[in-house]
Amino acid sequence: MPARHPRLKALPPAVALRLEITDERGAIAVIAGRVGEAGGRVRTLSTVRRAPSPDADPAARPMVDLELEVEDVDEDALVRALEPLREVVAIHLTRPLGKVFGKRVIVVGGGAQVAQVALGAVSEADRHNLRGERISVDTIPLVGEDAISSAVRAVADLPRARLLVLAGSIMGGEISRAAEELRAVGIPIIALNMVGSITDHVDLVVSDPVQAGTMAVMAVADTATFDLTRQRGRRY
Amino acid sequence: MPARHPRLKALPPAVALRLEITDERGAIAVIAGRVGEAGGRVRTLSTVRRAPSPDADPAARPMVDLELEVEDVDEDALVRALEPLREVVAIHLTRPLGKVFGKRVIVVGGGAQVAQVALGAVSEADRHNLRGERISVDTIPLVGEDAISSAVRAVADLPRARLLVLAGSIMGGEISRAAEELRAVGIPIIALNMVGSITDHVDLVVSDPVQAGTMAVMAVADTATFDLTRQRGRRY
Repeated sequence: MPARHPRLKALPPAVALRLEITDERGAIAVIAGRVGEAGGRVRTLSTVRRAPSPDADPAARPMVDLELEVEDVDEDALVRALEPLREVVAIHLTRPLGKVFGKRVIVVGGGAQVAQVALGAVSEADRHNLRGERISVDTIPLVGEDAISSAVRAVADLPRARLLVLAGSIMGGEISRAAEELRAVGIPIIALNMVGSITDHVDLVVSDPVQAGTMAVMAVADTATFDLTRQRGRRY
Repeated sequence: MPARHPRLKALPPAVALRLEITDERGAIAVIAGRVGEAGGRVRTLSTVRRAPSPDADPAARPMVDLELEVEDVDEDALVRALEPLREVVAIHLTRPLGKVFGKRVIVVGGGAQVAQVALGAVSEADRHNLRGERISVDTIPLVGEDAISSAVRAVADLPRARLLVLAGSIMGGEISRAAEELRAVGIPIIALNMVGSITDHVDLVVSDPVQAGTMAVMAVADTATFDLTRQRGRRY
């Protein structure tokens, strides 16, 4: 197994706003610059939608809704810094997505098995979220080496992704290479017991999909005592 | 029902990079500014993790991994524009998250019911993804008016969220107000048939959770012929 980063910590809490801005080429740089001048550190600047749709009124000024998360500055100061900007048309107070949706367990693979892993993971997340945790279970059913290996690699680009479950009956080749790349950035992987080389390139192999989902949530929950590093290489 | 925006269109395809950058206050503004100079339009700038963890080596220079998506510029030009920056330590070529994970159906509510809605939605998404669609099913089990209404509001801040399913046995009050706010930004809602006012504040009410998940995916799939606007206010 290649060397890898130690388990990565979540980012500290941020303040969040949703901005309606004019869709100009330089708008994001202006907003990010103003946040920095106010002493803040931009953590997320994400375009969530066009508003209104260009279909609705072609003559309307192009606008987008932007989700903004910032550290090291309080909400009032952030609003005061952004309000005067010509590019900012409206400001909505929101909550950082990490506080609402929390850590994400990602499940990728064949539909029938993804659904069973999700059943276990959602049931287990329910129990932890009742005790103050925030764990989401995010899934996509996909088929084929190309689609699945792309998804495995892209988990490294998902905010708040903390663990991947590979749910299928045969995976290897490029998927195994993508799995090692993902683990190298600090995101562990649980795989169902299956055909192919993938089971040699994950942290834990579990035969029962419901249990795989349950263990995945236990591994990321601060309210559980399950330590994946002690299980590394095992099969259940 | 209040007036609302027409159904919003997805943003056009972007090019994507993952950057390892030094975690300085002004780094994001510098990067966004350079993208603009290169003719690009920043769509996402999202901090996905600290790397390496400050726990690993307290003396190491603070760094973060950043997911960047940009429109109106090609990949080569984007890399050339960012490579010379002092703040940018490494550049990885990636794929835009919309191409990998696609549209998101969000499921929020009680664990047992969220799991059954997910079962229907994942099975249906599997069928559409096989035909070239990309639909994810993202879930969080939550309890209580405050936690659920916060999650409903926060769906408006989630990139690529296209529809919400509320899966529970009793919802109303602040959750119903949050539901109307979410629909006002163009995100439709399907609810299970349940106790409380929520069923008067959603687009469609479905009694069977598996069918609710199936219909949710059909409503967002370009490969389906199901039109939610024709079902508005109905109950099944």
